[in-house]
Amino acid sequence: MFDSLQKKLFALKENKVFEMAVVAVIIISALEIGAKTFELPEGAISMTQLLDIFITVFFLFEITIRFLADDNKKAFFKNGWNIFDTVVVVISLIPINDAEMALLARLVRVFRVLRMVSVVPELRVLINSLLKALPQLGYVLLLMFIIFYIYAAIGSFVFKDINPTLWGDIAISMLTLFRIMTFEDWTDIQYETMEFYPLSWIYYLSFIFFTAFAFLNMVIGIVVNVMEEEHAKANKEKAQQQGEPSIADLHAEIHELKALLTLHMNTNTGNNVATEKVTKSA
Amino acid sequence: MFDSLQKKLFALKENKVFEMAVVAVIIISALEIGAKTFELPEGAISMTQLLDIFITVFFLFEITIRFLADDNKKAFFKNGWNIFDTVVVVISLIPINDAEMALLARLVRVFRVLRMVSVVPELRVLINSLLKALPQLGYVLLLMFIIFYIYAAIGSFVFKDINPTLWGDIAISMLTLFRIMTFEDWTDIQYETMEFYPLSWIYYLSFIFFTAFAFLNMVIGIVVNVMEEEHAKANKEKAQQQGEPSIADLHAEIHELKALLTLHMNTNTGNNVATEKVTKSA
Amino acid sequence: MFDSLQKKLFALKENKVFEMAVVAVIIISALEIGAKTFELPEGAISMTQLLDIFITVFFLFEITIRFLADDNKKAFFKNGWNIFDTVVVVISLIPINDAEMALLARLVRVFRVLRMVSVVPELRVLINSLLKALPQLGYVLLLMFIIFYIYAAIGSFVFKDINPTLWGDIAISMLTLFRIMTFEDWTDIQYETMEFYPLSWIYYLSFIFFTAFAFLNMVIGIVVNVMEEEHAKANKEKAQQQGEPSIADLHAEIHELKALLTLHMNTNTGNNVATEKVTKSA
Amino acid sequence: MFDSLQKKLFALKENKVFEMAVVAVIIISALEIGAKTFELPEGAISMTQLLDIFITVFFLFEITIRFLADDNKKAFFKNGWNIFDTVVVVISLIPINDAEMALLARLVRVFRVLRMVSVVPELRVLINSLLKALPQLGYVLLLMFIIFYIYAAIGSFVFKDINPTLWGDIAISMLTLFRIMTFEDWTDIQYETMEFYPLSWIYYLSFIFFTAFAFLNMVIGIVVNVMEEEHAKANKEKAQQQGEPSIADLHAEIHELKALLTLHMNTNTGNNVATEKVTKSA
Repeated sequence: MFDSLQKKLFALKENKVFEMAVVAVIIISALEIGAKTFELPEGAISMTQLLDIFITVFFLFEITIRFLADDNKKAFFKNGWNIFDTVVVVISLIPINDAEMALLARLVRVFRVLRMVSVVPELRVLINSLLKALPQLGYVLLLMFIIFYIYAAIGSFVFKDINPTLWGDIAISMLTLFRIMTFEDWTDIQYETMEFYPLSWIYYLSFIFFTAFAFLNMVIGIVVNVMEEEHAKANKEKAQQQGEPSIADLHAEIHELKALLTLHMNTNTGNNVATEKVTKSA
Repeated sequence: MFDSLQKKLFALKENKVFEMAVVAVIIISALEIGAKTFELPEGAISMTQLLDIFITVFFLFEITIRFLADDNKKAFFKNGWNIFDTVVVVISLIPINDAEMALLARLVRVFRVLRMVSVVPELRVLINSLLKALPQLGYVLLLMFIIFYIYAAIGSFVFKDINPTLWGDIAISMLTLFRIMTFEDWTDIQYETMEFYPLSWIYYLSFIFFTAFAFLNMVIGIVVNVMEEEHAKANKEKAQQQGEPSIADLHAEIHELKALLTLHMNTNTGNNVATEKVTKSA
Repeated sequence: MFDSLQKKLFALKENKVFEMAVVAVIIISALEIGAKTFELPEGAISMTQLLDIFITVFFLFEITIRFLADDNKKAFFKNGWNIFDTVVVVISLIPINDAEMALLARLVRVFRVLRMVSVVPELRVLINSLLKALPQLGYVLLLMFIIFYIYAAIGSFVFKDINPTLWGDIAISMLTLFRIMTFEDWTDIQYETMEFYPLSWIYYLSFIFFTAFAFLNMVIGIVVNVMEEEHAKANKEKAQQQGEPSIADLHAEIHELKALLTLHMNTNTGNNVATEKVTKSA
Repeated sequence: MFDSLQKKLFALKENKVFEMAVVAVIIISALEIGAKTFELPEGAISMTQLLDIFITVFFLFEITIRFLADDNKKAFFKNGWNIFDTVVVVISLIPINDAEMALLARLVRVFRVLRMVSVVPELRVLINSLLKALPQLGYVLLLMFIIFYIYAAIGSFVFKDINPTLWGDIAISMLTLFRIMTFEDWTDIQYETMEFYPLSWIYYLSFIFFTAFAFLNMVIGIVVNVMEEEHAKANKEKAQQQGEPSIADLHAEIHELKALLTLHMNTNTGNNVATEKVTKSA
């Protein structure tokens, strides 16, 4: 009996109308969050409170259906997207009445909008591919962090007394260096230190050069990786799906020809030794 | 009789001199629009009014010829460029004498310059390729919009009281985030909120990281797509136009060889069974 | 006798030491130009005047040798680099004593540094490849100019009264738009017009989107073009220089095999008709 | 006996735990440097002094082991990373007690963090590939320097009297031009000179165009180079490792077939002359 219920739930989960309803509720939830940032009349505020309850209940309902419809209960929580959805729903269930926590309650609800990503398959693919690219960048990011760390240490040792707001300690210096990397009013910082250390432009220019170069390398790294994969995929598809003969097919054909010829020679003249010699020498 | 007129109009439409005249009038129209932004003497103003009438009449004349010269009157309005041209011409025909509407009249005339794109085939190809690239970017743009929306909601919840001009509501916050994405005085905004929330640099840095990464992915997506297409096109052209044999040609040649050999064996020895066995095993 | 002189001059021109001397004089000329921008003592000024005369005479001497050493006097002036060199040398020969013209005289001498490009072959190759890429970009630049022109016309019609310094006429507006494209304090301009037209952010965002997109397309266009050429070159080299057989080679080999087989069949059985039939059907 | 010691040292050097210890000490050294930029209590300062001594001794110990463990003492100092490590360690051994030199002592210790790069193999590979890309860029950088030099000379000749802080001499002008290249408040500089020379926007726009174009070319140069190499590597691997037949394999097979056929014809009919004729004509 439970099995037939599961089948019905699975059918509901896969239903296009149900999927659309989920997307619609997420959009409504997003619009509600946006609306709350404006000054709202009294009536609208009480309406958003009702809407909040409805959205919470609907999400709870949806995640329950998806969980029950799943054949393998354990595998359900091995999927990162399912965990994400469950966490978002569960956290929004915690009743927060305290005025101090009102901000936190709002922030939690903002993350409901991210459920859009877990519901729309194309966005999920996109995020997965972004996450896949991250480990490749790991060592480049480490190298960039080392560059930042060394420059921040030098900067806070040398420039600390000139402007403690920018170079006070290594953490502030790293933030200042990030600002320099985005070219945000970086010459103001440079001119200030150049008054005391006229050669400090070397510090800024070398830093910009290193980070730009490292960043460039990172970008090229991703491009090359992505294109290699695309290429390999495209080659496979071309060869297999369009029925065009590959080099391996030609190879097979030529082998066949040789077999045919060898057979012919053997049946015709019985000259086994000579053909074997040629075949071996190949 | 109408048929011969159509032929004449078609000949006129295809005429190089006529095409050049259309381009020339568009350029004159562009120059006139540019000239109007400067302070002009009395005489020049009345001249531009005459010029306006001439350009409007010429464009009406040209679009009429192109419509009459077309064999298939219905298909004419299925072409997006023809619709665009007709709309621009028709709108500039509406007499606007009201002083209030003078600005609108001017703006409509500005769009005449866009007719350059519909007349020069190379620009039309360029715009078409830009439009073709847009749908591929659809989901990346949606993802970026979600990132913007979530950050704008958080920003306006948390930073609203610090600076309502920048974080007043979700719409203003999104504009502020766009400004941060272009690195335009973004540290001023950051320093302001860091006075109240010292950890708010995480908000800015993570936002910059996400949008930069998403943008990068978008760019790579287009590059890969464009290059794949170019590659496929190039491969086809190389193989077909330059007369170089493809792998499929080789395949055909080897098949032919096999047929020849099989024929030879059959006519020579009548050994049908043996050859068939080899051919089947392939 | 003149012929042997020409040979000697040609030998001199090709001489490594002479080439080095030319590069050295260009570097000295560059250093002199740089030195003149600093406050110099009396002695140094009179020295630079002597140096100026020496450099002018040396360049005249060098260009004369290169002209005389050339076999084909007419072809000498068909080479763009030779024309460039001659113009630079001839102009610096014009005596300018007038104080007013002193600035012009200095500027002309600055272009001597560009002779570095015409002398070092690797730089010449680089510049040639840059110039080769320009025509491909022609239509993208035209499209971008049209976008700029339309936005500048709209901008100066609508925003002229708000800030005539930025939107006074179409020329100033185009400069302002270029500034917006480089993200240089663009939000200041935006906030100013948004006070009068709250929706004017659409104008700025759409402009940034269009130009960024057009620029992106331009970059991709160059990348694809450059890579296609590199690819084609690499393929040719691989196939021809490394002695690896191409598909065309295979084709030839198979044809040869067929000829061999046909010959064999004819000499063996005299069965002309059957083989011809198969060959034709291919 | 020394030989067995060397073996033991080599085993130690290759030991995973030892490698981890070295990385750990480098990280501790980095953290200590970072900590020193903050205001520290008395106790912590004396602790960092002890830590300093420990790190110095440990690095000396490690480099000694690596030197002794090396079979070829001369080759040790031909490896750039070994020289780098040794220099960093030796310099940090110099006792600096002078207050004036305290800053220098600190700076030297900062470079210890760079030892992270020489210890982690993946980072070493990354740096090596960056260094490998540099010579390819040599001529592009030279070209960019020439562009900068010419524009700086013109700038300091023409704009010197307008703003000596920005255009005082050729060195300051080059720094100003670098600022313009990063789009850092470049319009302020432009508006200032446009008051005296209304056409000076040509100077700025052409400079931005040239440097952007040269930079673009540089980036494309690296991308193409990197991808070519990746491609060549990928092709080799595909052909060799996956056992897929290459065109050369096919070539060999067809040759074999021909040999077989020729042999067959010779043994069958003794017709040597005819087959030779065909073989030659190929």
